[in-house]
Amino acid sequence: MKRVLLVVAYDGTQYCGWQVQPHQATIEGELNKALESLTGVPTEVIGASRTDSGVHAKCNLAVFDTESPIPGEKFFYAVNKYLPADIRVIASREVPTDFHPRHMETKKTYEYRIQCAAVPDPMRRNYVCFTFRNMDVAAMQEGAAKLIGEHDFASFCSAGSTAETTVRTLYQCDVRTHGDEIIIRVQGSGFLYNMVRIIAGTLMDVGVGLRSPEDVQRMLDAADRSAAGPTAPPQGLTLVNYEIVSTGEIFGK
Amino acid sequence: MKRVLLVVAYDGTQYCGWQVQPHQATIEGELNKALESLTGVPTEVIGASRTDSGVHAKCNLAVFDTESPIPGEKFFYAVNKYLPADIRVIASREVPTDFHPRHMETKKTYEYRIQCAAVPDPMRRNYVCFTFRNMDVAAMQEGAAKLIGEHDFASFCSAGSTAETTVRTLYQCDVRTHGDEIIIRVQGSGFLYNMVRIIAGTLMDVGVGLRSPEDVQRMLDAADRSAAGPTAPPQGLTLVNYEIVSTGEIFGK
Repeated sequence: MKRVLLVVAYDGTQYCGWQVQPHQATIEGELNKALESLTGVPTEVIGASRTDSGVHAKCNLAVFDTESPIPGEKFFYAVNKYLPADIRVIASREVPTDFHPRHMETKKTYEYRIQCAAVPDPMRRNYVCFTFRNMDVAAMQEGAAKLIGEHDFASFCSAGSTAETTVRTLYQCDVRTHGDEIIIRVQGSGFLYNMVRIIAGTLMDVGVGLRSPEDVQRMLDAADRSAAGPTAPPQGLTLVNYEIVSTGEIFGK
Repeated sequence: MKRVLLVVAYDGTQYCGWQVQPHQATIEGELNKALESLTGVPTEVIGASRTDSGVHAKCNLAVFDTESPIPGEKFFYAVNKYLPADIRVIASREVPTDFHPRHMETKKTYEYRIQCAAVPDPMRRNYVCFTFRNMDVAAMQEGAAKLIGEHDFASFCSAGSTAETTVRTLYQCDVRTHGDEIIIRVQGSGFLYNMVRIIAGTLMDVGVGLRSPEDVQRMLDAADRSAAGPTAPPQGLTLVNYEIVSTGEIFGK
């Protein structure tokens, strides 16, 4: 028996998120089916990040155990033949059997993309959050800076979270422009339920002037979901980078 | 009665191209339906470029005649309410009643995007042509340069063309890299059937070494479709820019 690590990219548009759910298409469910088709044995992957419905990934991680003779580094190629085109395994390798993607120190990076224009671009409709409103990027940058570091992010966590603590550390929270897009890039050791989307919704409120950059500090202090801004829609969000701290390995861009 | 110009962006993935066809979803057909829903009167647009199935546009042009009291510059906003999300009118205005998008001098620019990687990116699968082969970009640039200017492009025209002459002028044919993509950008006064896709397929042959840059000159000289490379797949192609020469107006990027 060996454990194999998969690096998985997907367009989340057509899926009810990562996690297996009855009667719903999910990323995890498609991976399980594809691995069973490939190996002939029912297989269950363990995922690193349980992304929401409509959220994308360049590099989510998953492991599974198998008796298959296929070498670990060949699995990505073999399993892709059984996956739909909107899910691709971009790399694979054998890992120690105690390697667990949720029980190790990692740095995850998400990007949230906002298209600012008069009319939405049809080719990006599933990958950005559209707004026709003018955004004050400098104010968004000022607000974002207040989120960097260790804080109680209770205001930035949707109901339904099962986390033991709402304290998290953000290593990076940058706002930049690229063409007609504003891109919010957030790196942290871990994220609460909907945390990045609430950060994005809050910074968009700051961008249009509904909130000030100083309000962001007050939101942290309140430790109450109702203090922060709305949860931005899922399609703007992509998991873009995964770093395994112990080995220094980096996946994604 | 007035004539209104629409600038139309679309994700061509789900459509059988621009032109109306019985029992098929097309861009032109969706525009006609939306304008009828909006104005209450059967309406037929006249399009500038009849893009193929799976091909995208940032700025195709279309005109239609209407008795509607809606001001020309408000139409884009009104008609979008009746269009599917993968088609957006990005601008509109009234034009002279003899304004015809195919009977005037224009410069059209297409981009053809090639993703060069080990595995296709699911989020770009409908917008790029994927290859895992190494491409010699310098050789592609050398080959592309031979296509610039006035030439008989008979070798770069699929059967089924109804053009009176196969002589065309390319103002630009550039090859550049952007991240893991190679982007071929072609500007001309007009294009033959499948011409940009055959240019892309030919330059990809040059990129992998199946043809030399010098072969591109020989293909032009042959004036025979079988002399050039294959027709590259449609999803890599996007109409990105439209210039009306007489007025200097530029649409798109």
